[in-house]
Amino acid sequence: MSVLVVGSIGLDTVKTPVAEHADLLGGSASYAAVSASFFSAVNLVGIVGEDFPKPHVAFFERRKIDLCGLQVAQGKTFRWSGEYHTDLNTRSTRSIELNVFEHFTPTLPADYNNTQYVLLANIAPSLQSHVLDQMTRPRFVIADTMDLWINIAKDDLLALLKRVDMLILNDGEARQFTGENSLIKAGKEIRKLGPKYVVIKKGEHGALLFGENAFFSCGAYPLEEIHDPTGAGDTFAGGLAGYLASLNHPEITFAALRKAVAYGTVLASYNVEAFSLERMRTLTQADIERRYEALKLLSHFDSLN
Amino acid sequence: MSVLVVGSIGLDTVKTPVAEHADLLGGSASYAAVSASFFSAVNLVGIVGEDFPKPHVAFFERRKIDLCGLQVAQGKTFRWSGEYHTDLNTRSTRSIELNVFEHFTPTLPADYNNTQYVLLANIAPSLQSHVLDQMTRPRFVIADTMDLWINIAKDDLLALLKRVDMLILNDGEARQFTGENSLIKAGKEIRKLGPKYVVIKKGEHGALLFGENAFFSCGAYPLEEIHDPTGAGDTFAGGLAGYLASLNHPEITFAALRKAVAYGTVLASYNVEAFSLERMRTLTQADIERRYEALKLLSHFDSLN
Repeated sequence: MSVLVVGSIGLDTVKTPVAEHADLLGGSASYAAVSASFFSAVNLVGIVGEDFPKPHVAFFERRKIDLCGLQVAQGKTFRWSGEYHTDLNTRSTRSIELNVFEHFTPTLPADYNNTQYVLLANIAPSLQSHVLDQMTRPRFVIADTMDLWINIAKDDLLALLKRVDMLILNDGEARQFTGENSLIKAGKEIRKLGPKYVVIKKGEHGALLFGENAFFSCGAYPLEEIHDPTGAGDTFAGGLAGYLASLNHPEITFAALRKAVAYGTVLASYNVEAFSLERMRTLTQADIERRYEALKLLSHFDSLN
Repeated sequence: MSVLVVGSIGLDTVKTPVAEHADLLGGSASYAAVSASFFSAVNLVGIVGEDFPKPHVAFFERRKIDLCGLQVAQGKTFRWSGEYHTDLNTRSTRSIELNVFEHFTPTLPADYNNTQYVLLANIAPSLQSHVLDQMTRPRFVIADTMDLWINIAKDDLLALLKRVDMLILNDGEARQFTGENSLIKAGKEIRKLGPKYVVIKKGEHGALLFGENAFFSCGAYPLEEIHDPTGAGDTFAGGLAGYLASLNHPEITFAALRKAVAYGTVLASYNVEAFSLERMRTLTQADIERRYEALKLLSHFDSLN
């Protein structure tokens, strides 16, 4: 089955303590779509300007991503510039140029309306809802979000939550959203707002998955060096969504969701090994399976005698 | 087999945002010994003053802890008073009275010298080494430590590390000790200083176990409410050591260590549910096994179809 990915597509300039690169492929939808493409067909909905480099389009095509929903508008592509601090755990945004993204309306090509799996990557919740307005009856809808929308568009986000099966957010955002310091409480609180499942991403500490009377804690894959954390969360969400779509089960089980979180973790762990989506260009299915097995080995404690 | 536990025994006054209790049973050896006693016989070495309440001694005896190594000295028992802040993740020490602990020399009863499993709970590393000086040839030696010793007794700690099989410390201490921000690097660096195994405790985020070309990441048991985090690390170490001793394998395998870390996690998760060691008074083997199975269910992702 296919997964529909909607979000931002941009050109990033990223500075870390050891390097700086400009005009990199970026944006939540870019990371999520490429990550999902390792598991399933992907329909991408987003917007770029006339300056969007052809090689980036060619890269999406090589990943067999359907680009009928990619709008090319007059003007410049969305740009973000950010700087990571010493420990790579904190970053500052240096500049944002919305450009064509400012007036983006995610309009779905007619044959996307029946896509069964939907990943609403990080964009304004009103736009995420607008996508759902156009869909017939998707089997599983995942929404990613960020602190910005919790701050400036909480009502839109609350309205969206009643329409999605899973919300993905990070630990700080979960605390901010609920006012709960305990992530266990926060995850449960967010479930009460609508989504049947909640994933709280904890960066180097892994991720927590909450379901009805069900809970899964996934460790992070241990990396000694991280080169660029940009897009790790989007890559995680894309891998998770792509894996679920690949199963094509009529019903999503918690067992399938555990594996999906593990595959998302694996994809994200690869992505942070290089700037932008560079690592994704050479990643193979064998790489993914090898690290999935390694993650199993380092997480399980009672099936390995 | 038995496990020898050496450390502090004290009377604690603990204040949290919701309650305050005085004259509680505390100290690293108290927590560790009681926790280990759920798995194996325990020989306790420590010191108390003449004021040490008889009910605390009776509690150790009910847990079948051998008290031949418990010194009762003229004077008062070690006292610690601390206060936890809003999120229970940070605490301030309000006062410390060393009392009889100031001149503590851990002298082993003759028949303790052959104990095969040793847990050097958190005390000065010179005292931890002094215990090893008296031992014949223990099979597995675990040392716990804290930031204080990294700051004021680093040389003693480095000397100790060459003599222990496993060091347990928390994330902040691992970073402080090695100067590495990455816990993955820090764990590997500490292994180079002597211990074959290193455990880095991450509180609500679980624990990491490092061995030679082997790594295990254990999630924390999800708790909505924590009443008193005091002694969680000591309880973890005690459960880990006690479980290993109960196996009585001639060789400690990494598979056994994974389970030991999981049992330590389970014991610690129970302990923080009440002040001091109160929860340990009613804890049963069935409770432990139930939560161990639950931890398995929430950590494994590919054996549960």
